[in-house]
Order: sequence, then C-alpha cells, then structure tokens
Amino acid sequence: MPSYNAPVKDQMFVLNDLLKVGEQEIPGFDDLDRETLEAILEEAGKVARDVMAPLNAVGDTEGCVLENGVVRTPKGFKAAFDAVREGGWTALDCDPEYGGQGLPYVVATAVGEQFSSANMAFNMYQGLTHGAYSAIHAHGSDEQKAMYLPKMVTCEWTGTMNLTEPHCGTDLGLMRTKAVPQEDGTYKVSGQKIFISAGDHDMSENVIHLVLAKIPGGPEGIKGVSLFIVPKFIVDENGNPGTRNGVSVGKIEEKMGIHGNSTCVMNYDEATGYLLGTEHKGMRAMFTMMNEARLGVGLQGYAQSEVAYQNALEYAKDRLQGRDVTGVRNPEGPADPLIVHPDIRRNLMDQKSFNEGARAFTYWGAEMIDRAHRNNDEAAHGLISLLTPVIKGFLTDKGFEMATNAQQVYGGHGYIEEWGMSQFARDARIAMIYEGANGVQALDLVGRKLAQDGGKHVMAFFAMVTDFIKDTKGRSDAFEKDFREPLKAASKDLQAAGMFFMQNGMKNPNAALSGSYDFMHMFGHVCLGLMWAKMAIAAEDKLTAGDADADFLNAKIATGRYYMARQLPMTSTHLTRIESGADTVMALDAAQF
Amino acid sequence: MPSYNAPVKDQMFVLNDLLKVGEQEIPGFDDLDRETLEAILEEAGKVARDVMAPLNAVGDTEGCVLENGVVRTPKGFKAAFDAVREGGWTALDCDPEYGGQGLPYVVATAVGEQFSSANMAFNMYQGLTHGAYSAIHAHGSDEQKAMYLPKMVTCEWTGTMNLTEPHCGTDLGLMRTKAVPQEDGTYKVSGQKIFISAGDHDMSENVIHLVLAKIPGGPEGIKGVSLFIVPKFIVDENGNPGTRNGVSVGKIEEKMGIHGNSTCVMNYDEATGYLLGTEHKGMRAMFTMMNEARLGVGLQGYAQSEVAYQNALEYAKDRLQGRDVTGVRNPEGPADPLIVHPDIRRNLMDQKSFNEGARAFTYWGAEMIDRAHRNNDEAAHGLISLLTPVIKGFLTDKGFEMATNAQQVYGGHGYIEEWGMSQFARDARIAMIYEGANGVQALDLVGRKLAQDGGKHVMAFFAMVTDFIKDTKGRSDAFEKDFREPLKAASKDLQAAGMFFMQNGMKNPNAALSGSYDFMHMFGHVCLGLMWAKMAIAAEDKLTAGDADADFLNAKIATGRYYMARQLPMTSTHLTRIESGADTVMALDAAQF
Repeated sequence: MPSYNAPVKDQMFVLNDLLKVGEQEIPGFDDLDRETLEAILEEAGKVARDVMAPLNAVGDTEGCVLENGVVRTPKGFKAAFDAVREGGWTALDCDPEYGGQGLPYVVATAVGEQFSSANMAFNMYQGLTHGAYSAIHAHGSDEQKAMYLPKMVTCEWTGTMNLTEPHCGTDLGLMRTKAVPQEDGTYKVSGQKIFISAGDHDMSENVIHLVLAKIPGGPEGIKGVSLFIVPKFIVDENGNPGTRNGVSVGKIEEKMGIHGNSTCVMNYDEATGYLLGTEHKGMRAMFTMMNEARLGVGLQGYAQSEVAYQNALEYAKDRLQGRDVTGVRNPEGPADPLIVHPDIRRNLMDQKSFNEGARAFTYWGAEMIDRAHRNNDEAAHGLISLLTPVIKGFLTDKGFEMATNAQQVYGGHGYIEEWGMSQFARDARIAMIYEGANGVQALDLVGRKLAQDGGKHVMAFFAMVTDFIKDTKGRSDAFEKDFREPLKAASKDLQAAGMFFMQNGMKNPNAALSGSYDFMHMFGHVCLGLMWAKMAIAAEDKLTAGDADADFLNAKIATGRYYMARQLPMTSTHLTRIESGADTVMALDAAQF
Repeated sequence: MPSYNAPVKDQMFVLNDLLKVGEQEIPGFDDLDRETLEAILEEAGKVARDVMAPLNAVGDTEGCVLENGVVRTPKGFKAAFDAVREGGWTALDCDPEYGGQGLPYVVATAVGEQFSSANMAFNMYQGLTHGAYSAIHAHGSDEQKAMYLPKMVTCEWTGTMNLTEPHCGTDLGLMRTKAVPQEDGTYKVSGQKIFISAGDHDMSENVIHLVLAKIPGGPEGIKGVSLFIVPKFIVDENGNPGTRNGVSVGKIEEKMGIHGNSTCVMNYDEATGYLLGTEHKGMRAMFTMMNEARLGVGLQGYAQSEVAYQNALEYAKDRLQGRDVTGVRNPEGPADPLIVHPDIRRNLMDQKSFNEGARAFTYWGAEMIDRAHRNNDEAAHGLISLLTPVIKGFLTDKGFEMATNAQQVYGGHGYIEEWGMSQFARDARIAMIYEGANGVQALDLVGRKLAQDGGKHVMAFFAMVTDFIKDTKGRSDAFEKDFREPLKAASKDLQAAGMFFMQNGMKNPNAALSGSYDFMHMFGHVCLGLMWAKMAIAAEDKLTAGDADADFLNAKIATGRYYMARQLPMTSTHLTRIESGADTVMALDAAQF
C-alpha cells in the first residue's frame, strides 16, 4: 500500500529561497513569511497524508456508482470531504468578501500539489468547484455572486464545467446544446454534455453546473456560445436548495483511472439556466479561468509523478536484489538494495530532477498569476498566457512518463494493482487529455501564443533567459560548466526553432505546426533548465551563508546537474525534428496510411 | 469497439521483399514462396480478426476468476482456444516428430504478431506453452519428449514457466523453492512461485509447469538451481492425466492489464517433479529459450502498438473536428477530419514508422534464430544474442509509448474503457516488465553481450552496418540525403558510445552502466534505421521493376523518410547522456534522495 508525505522542505525551498515570495511586491505577499508558510504546508500535509492518501486506493477500487439516478462516492469520501471543508482548505485563495481566506494563489497551488499527490480523484471535486467559483466571481452579477459564492467557497455546494458533447471536444463551435430565453429572463437549457468531472455525487447539498450552450438565432459556431449557471437544485428565496432542476446523470463513464471521481454524462432537459456574463461571450468567460485551470492540470501531472517517485524510492531502498558491481554494499544481507544499481538511479534521478524542476516552474507560474491579478501586471499576464500551454502539456506528458518509470522500479509488482503504482500511472494519464489535449496545447502555443501581441511575450521570455545567462557569467567554473553552458545551448536551440517558425510558418503554416509538439517540449525543458540554474544559485547562496542543511542543498545542486546533463540536451533532438519541417509529416495521402 | 485487420501486405513486404525468405539457404525456407506465405498469413489473419479480436475486450472486462481452486477464463475463450488448436495454429514451427508442422520460426513469428495484436492475453496461453515445449524439446529425455510434447504441440496440455518468487525476481539466486530427491528418481517440489502467466485455467486437460528449484546440498546461489517438470495431473502409464499433483493456485493477481490471462500465485507442496536436463544446470536450460521468449515479448510490444494505431487511424479519418489551416478539406461537413491536422499526422507517423520498422527488425531477428538453429550458424547465434535485449527492451518501451500516443488521438474517448484504447496501453505495459524488466535488458546488453566472445558480435554488427553504408554510396541523391546520411550519423553515435564504454567502463563499471538504458535505445534506433534504409531500397527496386502497387511502395519510402528525419536523430541525445558518464547519476547518497 503506497503512502505519501508532503515534500514540505522542498516546497519551502521553492517558495522561500527561489521565489522569495515574502519579498515580492504583490498585495498579500508580505504576510508570507517562512513561519506562516511552513505552518500552512505542514498542516495541509497532515490532511493530505492522513485524510486523503488512505482513500486513494479505495477510490480506485470502489469507484463511483450510479444508483437510482444518484451518484454514490466511495466509502469514506464524504467524511473526508467534510473534514477538508471544515478545516477551511477549500477557501484558501477565495475572496474574503464571500468567506474566503484571501491567500495568494501560489499558496493554494502548493497546498493543491499535496492534495493532488495524495488523492487526485478526490481533490478534483474541490478543484472543479474552484474553477466554477472563479468564473462566477469574474463574470457573475452581484446577486449571482451573493447567491452562489459563499456556499462554493466552503464546498457545501460544488461546481462543474460542462463543455464537451459527444460530437465535439476541441471544436466547441459544433456545440448543439441550446438555451432558449424565457420571459422571466431565465433560459431553458437542453442537450447532452459528456466527460463532466464531479458531475454528480453525494458529498454536497447542491451542484452548480456551468454549462456552455447556444442561444437560438445567435452567431454561428464558437461565436454564438454563451455560459449558464444551471444548479442541480434551484436556489429558493432563502438561499437554500429548492426545486429539482431538469438535469440528470445519464451514466458514469468507466475510465482508465481517477475512478474516485464521478465522470458523468449529464442530460439537460429544459433545465432552468441563468446567463453568466454576456450573451454569446461564453468562450471569453471560460478563457478567463483557462490559465488557472491548465496550470492546475499541469500540477496534477507532476503531483502524480511525485507520489509515485516517493514510493519507488522507498522500494528501491528496501528491496534486495543483485549486488553492486563495484563491491558488495550490504554484506549481511542476501543481496544489495536496488538503489545501488546505476540504471535504477538513472531512473530515480530522472523522476526526482523532473519533479523538483516542475514544482519550481509551476509555483513560478502561480506567482505570475498572482502578479497579473493582484498588480494588474500586463507583462505577467502575457508571460503566463505564453507559458500556460507549456505547463499543461509538458508537465503532464512528463508526469505520466515519470509515473510509468516509477512503476518500472517495482518490476512485476508494479503491474499488480495491490501495490498501487499502476494507479498513479493510470490517474496521471488523464491529465494529458483533459482541459485541452496536449496536441491542442502545442497548437495553442505555436499557432496562437507565439504571435500574441506581436510576439511581445515570447520576446520578453527570450530576453529574460538571455539576461539571466549574461548576469551569471563568471559566477564560478562549476556553475559555468554544469548550469550556464547547458542552459545557453538549450536556449539557443529554442530560439533557433522560433526563428524556423517565423521564416517558414508564414508561407506554410504546416511547417510550424508539424513542429508544435516538439516545440512545446523544448520550451518546457528550457523552463526547467532555467529553474534549475536559479535553484542552484539559491542553494549555493544558502551554503555560502552557512545554512545548516548542507545535505539537502548539495543534493539540490547535484539533482540540478543531473537535469542539465541528462534531460536538457533533449532540446537538440527536438530542434532537429522541427527543422526537418512539414515534408515528411504531410507526405502521405490519408488513404496511404 | 476496436477492430483488427492483419497487415498482411506489409508482413509480406518484409518477408518476401526485404528478407527474401524464399531465397535464403536455410533448411525449410525454400518452401516459403510468396503464395504459400500469403495463404498462411491470410488464413491466420481471419482467425485473428474473427476469433480472437472479438474476445479482447471480453477478456479485459471479465478477467479470470478463481472459484473453488479452479480458474475460469472469460466467456468464449475456451471455444476460441479449441478453434485455434483445431486449426493447427499452435503447431506451426513445432517438430514434425511430435506432430508439429516444421515451419520456420520466422513464419510462426509473423502469425504470432497477428494473434498478439488481436488478443494479447489470449495468445499468451499458447505462447507460454510454446516456451515450455521448447525447453522440453531441447533438454528433455526421449521419454519426456514422447510423454509431453505431442499434447503440448496441440495445446491439449498447456505449459508455464515458474521462475519468480515473492522475494526474488531478477536475482534468482535468492530462490527458496526446493526439490528433494526421492528414491524413485523423482523430486518433491515445495515452495511458492508468483506471477505465473497462464498458471491455471479451464481450457486444457493438463498444465505442464516448468519450475526452477534448488536441490538441497547443491551449490549456493544461481549455480544451484535446477529445472523440473511438474504436471498439474501426473501422467499415467497410458499417457493420460492421472493423479492430481501437489500444486495449487494461491490466488489470481489483479493486474493493470492482460486480464484475460490468469496470472497466478502457484503453491507447490511436495509436488512430484521430474528433473529436466541436468542437476544444477537449470538456468542454462532456461537460457536456451531466452532469445525466443524475449523476441516474443518485443513482438507483443509493437503488436499492441500496431492494433492501437489501426484504430487511431480510423478514428482520425472519421472524427470531424476543426479545420485544416491551409484550407477547408470537407466543405460539406461541419468540420474536417482529424487527420488533416499536422500534429495528428506527426503522432500517426510516429506510430506507423515505428510499427513497420519494428516488424522488419523482429522478423529479421526471427530469421536469425532460424539460421542459428537450422544451420548451426554461430555468427547468427552470436548476433541474435546481442540483439535480443534490444528487441525486447526497445520495442516494448516504444510499443507502450506508441499505444499511449494512439490513445491520445481519441482525446477524452481514449480514456474511456468502452472505446478500447486504454486496454491496448494497459496490456502493452506488461511487456516492459516481464521476461526481464527493461533495465535488466539494458544491463544484459552493456554488461554482458557487448563483451561476449571478445566483443566479436558487436564488432560484426558494426561491420555489417558500415559495409551497408559503404555499399549504398552513390545510389541516388535522394537515398543519400534521406537514408544513408542519417544512418551514417546514427551509427557513428552508436560506435562513439561503444567507445566511451570501452574507455571508461574498465576503471568504473558505473560509467558504462549509467548509460546502459540510453545505449539500448540508441541501438534500437540504429537497427530500425538500418531496416528502413533496406526497406527503402527494396521498395525502390520494386518501383523500378514496375510493380503495380506504387501507392504502397511510395508510402513505404515516405514513412522511412519520416523515421530517418524525426526518430533516428534521437541517437545524438542518447550519446550526450551516455558521455555525461556516471557522475551525476551516482552523486547522491541513498539518504539524500
């Protein structure tokens, strides 16, 4: 049975020593001193370890069941959800006006990583609610906010997002769900939505569905889509759940993983809906939450890798198999532990160096979201928009790969469900798909974000990396060789790819789009390389200052050296692929495949 | 519901046009004319499509159940197994002396690919039997052969391999199962074996277990291991299953995939066993089957990728979503099919170019096994020993990766079990683990096979590639640029890695072993690159000769160009990792992780 322990020390290193959140001039950040942060993360870590993690396998094995139209969650979920709610963990970064604690998003992100590692399927009920909360908070009328937000902050009412229909996923312009205006200003919403995470369950007294639908007579395609609030129970004049609305669960999907979350087919049959925001501007309302939602999914990717790694590491230390080729390490035992073997270490170091780099990248992104929202910082908003598809696509691809690698450490036991490693891989797999499949992320990055605002944001990113490389010149021979040179080479590869797109993409968009996936990965590597170089500096500075935890700091630097030597050079193969252009990709007719 | 159609045209291209099997001077190969081969593959393809494939999802959903000590296979399995048996499909390459058809192994391999694509879990009952058949055939006494082989050739009796115990997987020297000699020449076998595929089931009248065990008083560790035949029912004097032996199923494991195969914990309690081969030479007896068994697992890897690709391709042609950025392709429809999008093509081409390259590599390996066995060709035996860990490790890693990529084409539907794509990925996952986890394959390659017989075999491989590159000089500008140059570069990378191991591995074995996994992948890429260059020549030659199927042949060349441009360059990153040595891999103390 796997376990989870929140990596508070490493989280603190990123928040406190790398990002120095307490020193940032962002409203609310000055409260984030070391002690406060540590107290929050330690307490959240206990909830993750003691309340959520023990239910992870239960959720996987039992799954959710639809009985007489009602969804039953796995045993123990409801009590755990109550405990999380009562501990105030659902309200961290919510608006104090509606009962939230007003903490920065970066703090909620660090806590969210813990919860997601401990029990991804369980944490999604809260995650989806937060997404719906954000949409209503950003686009709702004062009355709507007053009616829904306080209950959603506490998760007494949970939320969902309804986008996908059987025939349309990425291409939402094909949507058929319709919303017919009524004389009282409400709408009658009818249609079928699929893949609705947390669509229904028995842990809250109401479910507030946000539903995309078309108002008849509106513009064609994606421009005619509006967003509606469709509560499971219509809220009465006292603010309580009243009449049952015309929405029901068609079925629960049997999935590869995240069985603890009820993924529902939702049928809307003249359900009463309330317009959220403006008619036909539904996509814009959805997009305002997109950066947050996609960062949250990127986080799920490495959060599964992190918990899988923790367990693989323990197994590698415990399991005795074979002998160290350079000399016996465990002479009293019948064999040495797995961790002596170079290829096991290669595997564990891949995981460790990815997880820690991904954590830094994600928290940096979350801080940018805070900066964008709390300071109205346009540059931060532009940069996080650029990086969002990278965070989502790269971290979920790699997260799944690393969870699979962790499974491999267990040998045959990794394939047996009882040992729990399969679940981490199966759960991680969805993060590559939902909230925009990773191919769509790559398209968003290359087809949209690169050119956004005249290419200003990607130029700013390149300038930031170039400046960092310039500023760290002559720091030390070791830093030069282990960090600065590899980062410089990788960043050069990335810029060369950008140049290739500029030179070829105009006359043939396919020349750019054929390299979009490689570009997304390349970009991810450069971001992690940048994080690692910065973390090495932070660790060196602490060592120089005489910090007591030299073991941790030296391990941090060594792990960074591993990433720079073994992972970052992947940018060169990505560049080769990109520069090979569209010819071989587009050569075949569909019939020739 | 996914489907499967045997890729007979492509299989024929490999056998007939690339390997030219009918022209090889190997006993039995002169019968392999085009018509005969095609007839076999077409007929087998029908069995795969109509008998096996329809049961694939059934096997996954129902799984095997242990009831009152007896294993029940999924509905329809028994009837299908009878049909396969009666069609003679279990006897293809078996010895005619025991009822086999005496066909070359390469033919059985091509048929095995079809069966494995159609229903991997189902085909394993036969596959394991074939392994046990081979062991008894190679090491059994005449009496043992006469007693067991005829029934195993027909799969009236099936077989198993019992190696792993709870505390020992890779390190079989730790084995505790013991075999105590009896006065009548038999042994009493006692102990527990785990992960026994096809360990018990209701489709045959007897199960012939091959069990590794230690005879008390023998040498320590791996040198004291012997191999025993332990039938479920002891065979009576008339050759029929008689008394129930002391072997029972402890439980069936719940696994990530291959649910249709019964993976059993087997308990031996003073079961009667018969020594197979010589005392304490059990490992040697197992190793004689290893090349075949591992090739068979490599085949499973790309066979799952093949069937996943077939379905992803159909979906990409059918599913309408978004528009071609270069202009609408399906003006009558609400959107264009997925296959117009460059990143979908990139994904499909990755799969297609891998599958076809892997098929060529595997059949080439199977032909080497035939050459080794039927011609007693030492060079062929040495080369296939070298390449076996590459076939097993590289093809299963990539096969899983590609099955996962195929799943991605389906977007959200890829994650829903009903659509069947999850099963391909989950089933493919085991091939990276069993028959020696892929890290162990890499260790075998670098730690053992490179230096085997004074490095003769790897030198022979390098010489073969170098000669090919020399011989194809000046063939054409297109071949030069698209095939010869990329192969030359990749082969140079591989040789540089070998050189790095030679120069550094002696003084520090970890310097070589830290790069073993990358080397295995690099080697795989070079082998597939070699296959693609040869296939391009075969296709060009047929086009020049005026072959009618120009569409197929042009697609073959274009697919090869894709591999050379987009996949083969990966060798350069592998080399960079290898040349970074052991420092960053071994830097941390176990406690610092």
